[in-house]
Amino acid sequence: MTMKRRTASFSMTVLLGLALLSAVAHAQDPLPSWSDGKAKQAIVAFVTKVTQEGTPDFVPPAERIATFDNDGTLWAEQPMYFQLLFALDRVKGLAPQHPEWQDKEPFASLLKGDVKGALAGGERAMLDIVMATHAGMTTEEFEKIVQEWVATAKHPVTKRPYTEMVYQPMLELLAYLRANGFKTFIVSGGGIEFMRPWVEKVYGVPPEQVIGSSIKTQFELRDGKPVLMRLPAVNFIDDKTGKPVGINEYIGRRPIAAFGNSDGDLEMLQWTTAGRGARLALIVHHTDAEREWAYDRTSSIGRLDKALDEAQARGWIVVSMKDDWKRIFPSEAK
Amino acid sequence: MTMKRRTASFSMTVLLGLALLSAVAHAQDPLPSWSDGKAKQAIVAFVTKVTQEGTPDFVPPAERIATFDNDGTLWAEQPMYFQLLFALDRVKGLAPQHPEWQDKEPFASLLKGDVKGALAGGERAMLDIVMATHAGMTTEEFEKIVQEWVATAKHPVTKRPYTEMVYQPMLELLAYLRANGFKTFIVSGGGIEFMRPWVEKVYGVPPEQVIGSSIKTQFELRDGKPVLMRLPAVNFIDDKTGKPVGINEYIGRRPIAAFGNSDGDLEMLQWTTAGRGARLALIVHHTDAEREWAYDRTSSIGRLDKALDEAQARGWIVVSMKDDWKRIFPSEAK
Repeated sequence: MTMKRRTASFSMTVLLGLALLSAVAHAQDPLPSWSDGKAKQAIVAFVTKVTQEGTPDFVPPAERIATFDNDGTLWAEQPMYFQLLFALDRVKGLAPQHPEWQDKEPFASLLKGDVKGALAGGERAMLDIVMATHAGMTTEEFEKIVQEWVATAKHPVTKRPYTEMVYQPMLELLAYLRANGFKTFIVSGGGIEFMRPWVEKVYGVPPEQVIGSSIKTQFELRDGKPVLMRLPAVNFIDDKTGKPVGINEYIGRRPIAAFGNSDGDLEMLQWTTAGRGARLALIVHHTDAEREWAYDRTSSIGRLDKALDEAQARGWIVVSMKDDWKRIFPSEAK
Repeated sequence: MTMKRRTASFSMTVLLGLALLSAVAHAQDPLPSWSDGKAKQAIVAFVTKVTQEGTPDFVPPAERIATFDNDGTLWAEQPMYFQLLFALDRVKGLAPQHPEWQDKEPFASLLKGDVKGALAGGERAMLDIVMATHAGMTTEEFEKIVQEWVATAKHPVTKRPYTEMVYQPMLELLAYLRANGFKTFIVSGGGIEFMRPWVEKVYGVPPEQVIGSSIKTQFELRDGKPVLMRLPAVNFIDDKTGKPVGINEYIGRRPIAAFGNSDGDLEMLQWTTAGRGARLALIVHHTDAEREWAYDRTSSIGRLDKALDEAQARGWIVVSMKDDWKRIFPSEAK
């Protein structure tokens, strides 16, 4: 072997070695869709800190509770909340059984395709739509309705299934936390029974770790068979001050990490960070008009105003989707 | 070596072997406080069945949900519900701050030691006692009050701490189910925040797997610090038809096994057994007046009447504490 060939061979080995190292490093990166910026560093530093036994910041696994908002934090929420799009689809589907809806608001406007007109009726209109589409059946019947919608409905803009409108970096974050002994919970203003049928498969979050808004249910025997009927009455609104209330009621333990994107998550972030010891509060800021949507202080959906000020004042992590996320949706090329 | 000695040596080996086998068998018995009767056999048969992969009765771990009533099922409930004894102790403790209680029922009777007289006021009296002792403080303050009471209070008859009035066979059952991939939940008519401070240590059930009755809470900022105030208003009653409602709301999945002791558990057992596939329903029958208490159809506490009939009609397991349990409390000799 000449010197030249030996050098070449050596270089090749080094190059192969470097490539391998890089591949290993990449394979080991639990957050590959996150840019190597402050946000990612802060997340990794926090997780490293609370999982290091024998240090003052160590948190036993049983107390590693992480809570995630859903709309705008785990999946998109534009051009309107997906559950509202579900309700609109249901109104159309149920219209033949409700001839009276042709002359009755908010249904008449909806059936003419005038969503804005329908929602002009404010909270009352919204409640009428929710109750007409979410109540009056058993819990098992509603579960099937949601499952079928999730399996077939398409997002009005992207034409993709709604379950593909989830954020790849957040899927990685959920998995990363669980791999480090965290128990991940969803704490959403959305309907608890609207999420449970699909979040286990999509987010890896089992139904018993989902907290959300709910309507009342009632136990009944139908031909001797027990059922739970969904009633047209609000049971719990899991939004704003409702989020810490829901967290306390369902989990009974204060989270050490919380993730949101709007003013609806402010109290959850306040409640989480007010606990003793290391805490992580993170806000997803919708800054990418090209790959997703850009909105914050003046948006009617997912308004981020007070919580953005408080995040800046208190040093919470604010994730810019444009800068901090290399990839937004799972369907994008790696 | 003579023949005799060889035989003796062989016998010794056999005996040692048998002793060892017996020791191993004993060590492997996950339910040592249960007599080898029908109840124990049915439990073991059920667990074996649902954990055998590749069989039609196999249940994936995520769906192995087991729900346990607390009062009378996991710990004793005589001479009255322990939470009521807690409330009575609190009334005494708070009396100096409430001079008006001296002339106001149900407090006046209570402070004279006349519990019966106090409770003569029925549900209204009970509610007054609960609200006076369970509301008006933050969730953290209440947690400390419960912790302190549990650490110091003694049962009026046995003079033992309340957390030693738990049933050893049920502790073994909880552990046995968890060792077989079950997630164990408490579903109690008792207060959710009255149980959470101690059940993790005593039963191995974390706070997020506790369902119970609750009062309303409200998020407030106190000097900029977020707190949850406990309000004197009922939020949820987790008893009778409330149990399946609570199970659906908190767990979102139907249990495959449920354990109770009274008519308050009937609907939970109905809901559990109405699901498809293998199901286990078990009732603890208080039949041991010597080691515990004997009561059923006519008891005002833990009445077991309708549920006993239904158990017999539907073949649910009825555990006789007298016959099926070798040991009742952990403090008894093995």
